Amino acid sequence: MDINKEQLHEMLHPMKVIGLGGNPALNEKIAAILNQPLIETAVHHFSDGEIQVNIGETVRGCDVFVIQSIQDPVNENFMELEIVLDALHRASANKVNVVIPYLAYSRSDTKTRSREPITAKLIANLLQLTGMDRLIAVDLHASQIQGFYNVPVDHLHAMPLLAQYFLDNGIADKGEDDVVVVSPDHSGAKLARNFGQYFDAPIAIVDQRGARYDTEVHDMIGDVKGKKCIIVDDLIDTGSRIAASTKSVLAAGATKVYVAATHALLSKDAIEVLNQLPVEQIVVTDTIKHSHYPDRMVRISVDQLLARGIDYVYNDRSIHQIFDEQNRLK
Amino acid sequence: MDINKEQLHEMLHPMKVIGLGGNPALNEKIAAILNQPLIETAVHHFSDGEIQVNIGETVRGCDVFVIQSIQDPVNENFMELEIVLDALHRASANKVNVVIPYLAYSRSDTKTRSREPITAKLIANLLQLTGMDRLIAVDLHASQIQGFYNVPVDHLHAMPLLAQYFLDNGIADKGEDDVVVVSPDHSGAKLARNFGQYFDAPIAIVDQRGARYDTEVHDMIGDVKGKKCIIVDDLIDTGSRIAASTKSVLAAGATKVYVAATHALLSKDAIEVLNQLPVEQIVVTDTIKHSHYPDRMVRISVDQLLARGIDYVYNDRSIHQIFDEQNRLK
Amino acid sequence: MDINKEQLHEMLHPMKVIGLGGNPALNEKIAAILNQPLIETAVHHFSDGEIQVNIGETVRGCDVFVIQSIQDPVNENFMELEIVLDALHRASANKVNVVIPYLAYSRSDTKTRSREPITAKLIANLLQLTGMDRLIAVDLHASQIQGFYNVPVDHLHAMPLLAQYFLDNGIADKGEDDVVVVSPDHSGAKLARNFGQYFDAPIAIVDQRGARYDTEVHDMIGDVKGKKCIIVDDLIDTGSRIAASTKSVLAAGATKVYVAATHALLSKDAIEVLNQLPVEQIVVTDTIKHSHYPDRMVRISVDQLLARGIDYVYNDRSIHQIFDEQNRLK
Amino acid sequence: MDINKEQLHEMLHPMKVIGLGGNPALNEKIAAILNQPLIETAVHHFSDGEIQVNIGETVRGCDVFVIQSIQDPVNENFMELEIVLDALHRASANKVNVVIPYLAYSRSDTKTRSREPITAKLIANLLQLTGMDRLIAVDLHASQIQGFYNVPVDHLHAMPLLAQYFLDNGIADKGEDDVVVVSPDHSGAKLARNFGQYFDAPIAIVDQRGARYDTEVHDMIGDVKGKKCIIVDDLIDTGSRIAASTKSVLAAGATKVYVAATHALLSKDAIEVLNQLPVEQIVVTDTIKHSHYPDRMVRISVDQLLARGIDYVYNDRSIHQIFDEQNRLK
Amino acid sequence: MDINKEQLHEMLHPMKVIGLGGNPALNEKIAAILNQPLIETAVHHFSDGEIQVNIGETVRGCDVFVIQSIQDPVNENFMELEIVLDALHRASANKVNVVIPYLAYSRSDTKTRSREPITAKLIANLLQLTGMDRLIAVDLHASQIQGFYNVPVDHLHAMPLLAQYFLDNGIADKGEDDVVVVSPDHSGAKLARNFGQYFDAPIAIVDQRGARYDTEVHDMIGDVKGKKCIIVDDLIDTGSRIAASTKSVLAAGATKVYVAATHALLSKDAIEVLNQLPVEQIVVTDTIKHSHYPDRMVRISVDQLLARGIDYVYNDRSIHQIFDEQNRLK
Amino acid sequence: MDINKEQLHEMLHPMKVIGLGGNPALNEKIAAILNQPLIETAVHHFSDGEIQVNIGETVRGCDVFVIQSIQDPVNENFMELEIVLDALHRASANKVNVVIPYLAYSRSDTKTRSREPITAKLIANLLQLTGMDRLIAVDLHASQIQGFYNVPVDHLHAMPLLAQYFLDNGIADKGEDDVVVVSPDHSGAKLARNFGQYFDAPIAIVDQRGARYDTEVHDMIGDVKGKKCIIVDDLIDTGSRIAASTKSVLAAGATKVYVAATHALLSKDAIEVLNQLPVEQIVVTDTIKHSHYPDRMVRISVDQLLARGIDYVYNDRSIHQIFDEQNRLK
Repeated sequence: MDINKEQLHEMLHPMKVIGLGGNPALNEKIAAILNQPLIETAVHHFSDGEIQVNIGETVRGCDVFVIQSIQDPVNENFMELEIVLDALHRASANKVNVVIPYLAYSRSDTKTRSREPITAKLIANLLQLTGMDRLIAVDLHASQIQGFYNVPVDHLHAMPLLAQYFLDNGIADKGEDDVVVVSPDHSGAKLARNFGQYFDAPIAIVDQRGARYDTEVHDMIGDVKGKKCIIVDDLIDTGSRIAASTKSVLAAGATKVYVAATHALLSKDAIEVLNQLPVEQIVVTDTIKHSHYPDRMVRISVDQLLARGIDYVYNDRSIHQIFDEQNRLK
Repeated sequence: MDINKEQLHEMLHPMKVIGLGGNPALNEKIAAILNQPLIETAVHHFSDGEIQVNIGETVRGCDVFVIQSIQDPVNENFMELEIVLDALHRASANKVNVVIPYLAYSRSDTKTRSREPITAKLIANLLQLTGMDRLIAVDLHASQIQGFYNVPVDHLHAMPLLAQYFLDNGIADKGEDDVVVVSPDHSGAKLARNFGQYFDAPIAIVDQRGARYDTEVHDMIGDVKGKKCIIVDDLIDTGSRIAASTKSVLAAGATKVYVAATHALLSKDAIEVLNQLPVEQIVVTDTIKHSHYPDRMVRISVDQLLARGIDYVYNDRSIHQIFDEQNRLK
Repeated sequence: MDINKEQLHEMLHPMKVIGLGGNPALNEKIAAILNQPLIETAVHHFSDGEIQVNIGETVRGCDVFVIQSIQDPVNENFMELEIVLDALHRASANKVNVVIPYLAYSRSDTKTRSREPITAKLIANLLQLTGMDRLIAVDLHASQIQGFYNVPVDHLHAMPLLAQYFLDNGIADKGEDDVVVVSPDHSGAKLARNFGQYFDAPIAIVDQRGARYDTEVHDMIGDVKGKKCIIVDDLIDTGSRIAASTKSVLAAGATKVYVAATHALLSKDAIEVLNQLPVEQIVVTDTIKHSHYPDRMVRISVDQLLARGIDYVYNDRSIHQIFDEQNRLK
Repeated sequence: MDINKEQLHEMLHPMKVIGLGGNPALNEKIAAILNQPLIETAVHHFSDGEIQVNIGETVRGCDVFVIQSIQDPVNENFMELEIVLDALHRASANKVNVVIPYLAYSRSDTKTRSREPITAKLIANLLQLTGMDRLIAVDLHASQIQGFYNVPVDHLHAMPLLAQYFLDNGIADKGEDDVVVVSPDHSGAKLARNFGQYFDAPIAIVDQRGARYDTEVHDMIGDVKGKKCIIVDDLIDTGSRIAASTKSVLAAGATKVYVAATHALLSKDAIEVLNQLPVEQIVVTDTIKHSHYPDRMVRISVDQLLARGIDYVYNDRSIHQIFDEQNRLK
Repeated sequence: MDINKEQLHEMLHPMKVIGLGGNPALNEKIAAILNQPLIETAVHHFSDGEIQVNIGETVRGCDVFVIQSIQDPVNENFMELEIVLDALHRASANKVNVVIPYLAYSRSDTKTRSREPITAKLIANLLQLTGMDRLIAVDLHASQIQGFYNVPVDHLHAMPLLAQYFLDNGIADKGEDDVVVVSPDHSGAKLARNFGQYFDAPIAIVDQRGARYDTEVHDMIGDVKGKKCIIVDDLIDTGSRIAASTKSVLAAGATKVYVAATHALLSKDAIEVLNQLPVEQIVVTDTIKHSHYPDRMVRISVDQLLARGIDYVYNDRSIHQIFDEQNRLK
Repeated sequence: MDINKEQLHEMLHPMKVIGLGGNPALNEKIAAILNQPLIETAVHHFSDGEIQVNIGETVRGCDVFVIQSIQDPVNENFMELEIVLDALHRASANKVNVVIPYLAYSRSDTKTRSREPITAKLIANLLQLTGMDRLIAVDLHASQIQGFYNVPVDHLHAMPLLAQYFLDNGIADKGEDDVVVVSPDHSGAKLARNFGQYFDAPIAIVDQRGARYDTEVHDMIGDVKGKKCIIVDDLIDTGSRIAASTKSVLAAGATKVYVAATHALLSKDAIEVLNQLPVEQIVVTDTIKHSHYPDRMVRISVDQLLARGIDYVYNDRSIHQIFDEQNRLK
């Protein structure tokens, strides 16, 4: 017989892709790679602050992928997603997969003081309540956040894309000995170690001891003297942590500074802060969209990564293959 | 023994009142009547769009009442409430009662077209997920919304306060025959009938047939000629419905027009629209706060009503007493 | 390839239709249109009051549609449905769709006094507990009842069928000006307005003020003098509301009276009451079966409507198409 | 200090007892023993088959005990209970304890054939959905039914009351050797063994092999020749099983026959059947009420047993004490 | 078109079989009959007592059957199963079917004293929490345990296999009159009756009255004199109950003793106890594996039974067919 | 009136403490400090591998604290806890608080490869299923595990007790400059930084790059030459990580080595490994009990810490006070 599983699945449960308002440019890139139209979805933000949603075409029996970056305005974008999920559920979609390039509130993943919420868990509970079948996410602040969900989570890694950039552009090389990967704080040491493996590079840590790290020069743990430093972090928020780290590595004798981070929040006056820093390049991904960006910022797209994730999920292929390819770089 | 139930309860489960950012002036009035301090609750809206919460004092074993008006910015205020509820739950409060003077999204209480959400139900599900023990609300758009909740709902009525105003100020009177209560559309006929009972007044209905009701003069069902009209609605959004109704009743021969509504959303250019209308007074409550208001708007406070609701709930008294007193007006 | 989605679906998940005891004649009509046998289901009501159920053939992997009208005896019929749902769930049906032509308790959709249940919500919770995947219902008392369910609800409208009857039989016509649609109380004004659109007719409302409406003649809001009146309601229970409305419109000068309602409960002495009324015709549907009916009652079948609903659900077609066709009448 | 736990509890959470319509005489006896009024609860069974409920006084913060025998009409009585539970939950009762002297559907506790429901589990799930905090039941058909519930179940035994009757009236005695306890089928052997312990009596079993046991004389397992036989069962339904057992033991040489059973369903023509049987006495309890009873039926009340159960639960005393006292008989 | 339902299903949701460590020999036999490889699953029991699991190949979209006998070490085997279920759920299996040849804790199916758990219900709740879609089990201690589950349970019977053995080997025969089936206690009378039907044999019951039954000779209910006795039970634990029963039937004049039981736990010194008993044969199944067995023990495999169960479930065939064939023996 | 909240609470809901078999010595110490008897709880581990539980006295209405260290044998201890929780729930305890000094499976807190479970989340789900009201835990492997629970978690820190030991015994001092706190891997850098604050000490990190860290000498990040090193970790499992770290810091010129860790698992041949290491002292807590310990191991008890945690929870005091006192050390 000349019909295969993928054709059968497509006939029974056609793929539909919905792109919400957080990061429309990325939505379109992903849809283009998947060769799928973004289905028309009317989302109105009314003058009284409410959001109204109408899905533009039938989704009965379809496997829907909803792409929404929970970026600033975080709560608007989150509620927009929730309301669309409610509509999809009531409209009898077969499976609802949620693709979240940037998932806000992930840093609120534990209770650091009495009477604090664990907002990342709240977000997980709220999303699961609306009948989400699966989450596809990128570089979560802590991998434990996967465990906040009872539905399957496909946790994709954008860090290899950033490493690839440094390798492709001759900035770092496995054969050379001139690069140190730097973690801006103690919690990031493991991430730095992983990132260092792409270049066989040693790591160093900025020894932030106090709460106010943004204006000071900190001690370094590990040696950066005479080296190119790549400061690596999962996200850049106001830029103050990057700024303090840059100053610290330069004070410790680094020759050049690069920055690598998955999520570029760029909140408050981050653009100004970063523009004034003596760094060579700031390499980030496009999980978050802004109207303008700092100078010397390079944006690597996660479009291929997410499109492959969607394609593999839809066709029941193991996401493991993506990880295997990424690990071959190391 | 000389100790009573209320003293016992207060010793075991002290009352704590938290006022969130939707309508702080109302929070303070309610707390003052209850003779309770608003407990300090740090709520930060960060530059990246996230909200962070820290409850300022212990709530272990306490019966907490959280007051939040879900007014514009709706999604911010709603998420602020959700995050506080998560914090209270993790901080081991005994009971968490949520007091919502204005509950947004209540108009999205049914599916009017295919592939629409029922956002009022979504809101109910999300609130209940966070472990809310009870909801105290005011004049919900449809009383069926009580049934969206599995937790007990105390549905308080502000309409009698508005009726009281008209009676106290000699605008309408049971003995007179000069008032007609007007519903701006067909769905509101029952509300108009109820409101009319305070004055033994007949009702009339603005016969809006098309979708665009804001610019036209509509036919009237029922007679308003030579009468004072009180247009009554549960909320005033952009003001266009009130405007069309005012024009319609005047065209049908009404002598004077008053407006009564519980919730004054006043979105878009509502203030301007209302200021230009030939109405005597617009009587609303203070469930929603604004920086400024239309001319001729009279705001009746729901502070006593909500404070009594909280007190009765806390002390296990029947809310029924409030309804009984209100009905005595009729 | 020469196989289509519908064939695939039918092979994987054959349709099975079960008709329960509430309204067997309607079950059979629907099954006949679907060209499906009603699968044999042994339902015994034992002498001790218990119900025993045995499904007559395998339903493993099938998409089952269970049709049950929750009519008098309401609680027997409801429990019969619940027990069948439990059996289907344990018998490994793929999807269980519940088709309820008349859903009792829908009027108990809110708490009108302290310490009342919201039985329509209780019914929704009980049905969903047994693993129902979807509800197909007809003209619910309040459309908000959709929001009592977390599973998708397909809410079909029988009112257009009634309107069609009046048009087809020349009783009402868009070109004429002799018809007024009358709501028997204030809550029904919106339904009357919608029904009126089929004939471009104005509406009027019976101004019932007291609790006891069955013996009095009430005032009218709106003009019915010299007109044919169609009193429209969602259901006819004891007939007393229709009786009072008929007297009121005749007293106000109406020339002829027709009645239109979806659900004919006909409880207590309704048949006698209706037989004595000076109305031309009482047009209802067959959602509820009785052993005999009032004179001048015309019963329009919802069989085609429900069969189409079932067919569209089974084949993942948008129910929207049914609404579109119905709206073209207006 | 001169206040004890029970006074405190009563002050904080007063006891309220509601008696529903299944078996009002028993409700009243229990309430009288507890020295509590039955709180007024309006339960209307309407002409259209629906049930409407209104709780007559406030239950906010109270510990409520609802007594309902789920006897014929089983489904009416069950739904009446469910609707009252919904009302109590929405009326903010502190704890809702359900007292069910006779729980119908308990025999449907397993799946004996394909595509059957397990209705006893369905009933358990439905009851728990409505927020029941505890079940107090009497002589369940299978003790495993306790495990169908996740809430605590207090399973009280009425069998010792029946044994007491036989001892008190000199029918059976530990010192004598003239009594055999007989199980009407194989499943009841364990119950017979337990019941026999009160009299140090041997047991015998009616060896019903076919499905139709009502007209035949069956073989006996064990010896009854020349003995007084007490046939013991958990319930008497149509009486046919008792009839067949009586004939069998007499055919096997028994001298006199007594019957003991907790629940007297007496369905179909049971009264006639039992009246024609050559038995001395039929000793049952009053868990089920009827308008009239067979001759020679003795009804022992469970009122003291249930009142003690309620009292112990309310005052956090161990039910174990009741069991201990009952076991002392053996 | 030349494709059938089973081919379609296999293409869309391939079958995968996982065998866990409780009884690997049985797993392999079942897999061989199904002509399916056991998919490689790394289960490590670490030196610190934790279990780690890694599923060896993709299961996305597959229908997985996990076979695990919950035999000694019971808690290790149970947790191994739970952890594999969690992994399967997160690995996006389509359906997870659990096949449990021996399900420990089934005897803890009710609360016999105050403050006891109902562990069989706890096990049911824990298994269902991990997203199990169905349970396939063999000869549960009480059939009511099916009702502890809300997911479908296929309860297969191994007793007919044991009966078949006695018939095939000429030990018992329908035509002869020399066999009595014996229940070792009162609770087992129904099982004995069912087992007896294969041979048209009468039954007898060992009349254990005290708690300590292992050393005594008990009275018999029913006649065994001069007969071959088959003592039948659902499981053999320490062997003491079988030992006491053997002594009792021999003391009552039985000529030969056979034992039949589904589950051979053989705990404590059971092998020694059984070896010393004057029984002809002990016929059991292989639901539980041991390193060695008593003399004269015959083990009948349930491999065909479970393989058929799996095959029927996978292909949506009615399990009823298995029961029908088994009943034809009677 | 001379009665206070704590007396009231104790009268209404007496405290009961149950100590299970994981670490009985610690249970007894805690109970002694609380001045509470450990209530008798019969836990039998039967020869067939099952666990049976009977709570020795009534717990109706009591606030129960169950202490169980989930140490080796992990699965036995976990299931023992689960079964006791089921019994407590069915025995009508008011609140069930679970105190877990060592919580196994916490390292399985994320999915590191495809098709792995997240066992720490599974454990959280299983515990919450049984109706646990609160968890009190000590030094969880990742603080995000708090977010795996929806019930409140009181996460107590034993690290300050270890720091106190080093301060009290003059090993480390804030005024001196001779100590470096060392993390055995990158993930532990933050813990090392926190621990260093008690002594104002710098930190260093063992730069483990490969998967096999147990036999090699690794590079150091940060300077340890001529210093006393305190290697700090949350737990000591097989000892291999401590061994490799010790070798690495000595190779890098450290003068003396101390080890500090909360949980001493000591699995496999850990005692031998540690005995052969050239370390001064290994300072751990008594969250886990063993029959014997390595030389030079100092065990600090967490008894006071847990007793205070229990006391504060029982009396609704803020746990925050414990943290505040602990922070004053820094």
